[in-house]
Amino acid sequence: MEELEVRKAFSLLEPGPVALLTTYNHKRYNIMTFSWHMVMDFTPRFALLTGPWNYSYHALIATEECVISIPTIDLMEKAIGIGTTSGKNTDKFEKFGLTAIKAEEVKAPLIKECYANIECRISDHIEKHDIFVLEAVYAWIDKYRKETKTFHYKGDGTFIVDGKIVNHRKEMKSLLLPYM
Amino acid sequence: MEELEVRKAFSLLEPGPVALLTTYNHKRYNIMTFSWHMVMDFTPRFALLTGPWNYSYHALIATEECVISIPTIDLMEKAIGIGTTSGKNTDKFEKFGLTAIKAEEVKAPLIKECYANIECRISDHIEKHDIFVLEAVYAWIDKYRKETKTFHYKGDGTFIVDGKIVNHRKEMKSLLLPYM
Repeated sequence: MEELEVRKAFSLLEPGPVALLTTYNHKRYNIMTFSWHMVMDFTPRFALLTGPWNYSYHALIATEECVISIPTIDLMEKAIGIGTTSGKNTDKFEKFGLTAIKAEEVKAPLIKECYANIECRISDHIEKHDIFVLEAVYAWIDKYRKETKTFHYKGDGTFIVDGKIVNHRKEMKSLLLPYM
Repeated sequence: MEELEVRKAFSLLEPGPVALLTTYNHKRYNIMTFSWHMVMDFTPRFALLTGPWNYSYHALIATEECVISIPTIDLMEKAIGIGTTSGKNTDKFEKFGLTAIKAEEVKAPLIKECYANIECRISDHIEKHDIFVLEAVYAWIDKYRKETKTFHYKGDGTFIVDGKIVNHRKEMKSLLLPYM
């Protein structure tokens, strides 16, 4: 896992993949699966929707920190398992055979097996709409990973796997940031 | 274009595809391309991030209505063209050869060539974060369309095209709504 320039990290979430979110509640680590997220800015800043019905919510409120991890298709079954299990009674790192690594800026852990990890601080909580605003503070990528295809939830028990990548950089030149 | 049960419409946006948004500013129609969106609820409710730098923003504020249209990969070049052109000086329906159809519940138009259209009313505007909260009120789908693959923006001038669909309904049974 190598450092990824944090200002490039929005491009990991912009395609809308299923993502994992780790937290640390001062006792132990937890993981949730989510796809209700949105890029808000290139800094980057992200929105995430969750509320008290979710066990991770309480750790988010208590610590104001988390890590967004990007799983690839080889981790699909684990992501589904994580999304259908509560952290209340389960150590999900142990149950799903995942490795927690110490992060650089936050106490929530990176997931070693994931393609990328984005360390985030919560900068705002829009309680009326259950939206957390996350500021990315450090990012990591596994540049040597062979499998880099992500997957997208259709909301009905089925998933779309990434297909080919199409390059339109020329036509989109006016919108690209200088470092992209 | 046939009616789609509106409570099923969230599954069109949950995978995070590039989407189009139409508005009507009391004078003419406009279209923008966006991927900064998020499902908020199964009703469905969506979040969309945009602000005064975007021409469509003014129509959103003035009318509190819009249509979210889902383009497929055969419309990728048009979606890029729409995203790199301002509606201030251009009739994008004319320029990009798209057909506006009258919607059922809102004055913003459907796009005939898209796979699906979701009519929305703005139920809240979180000004601090440039987030609009949209309530879907009616939805349409082209059930006879051959091309149904969508595409996802990576934020760097490249796009991920939908690959195969994987079914995990059995493992996810506990999370599925009865009508999914």
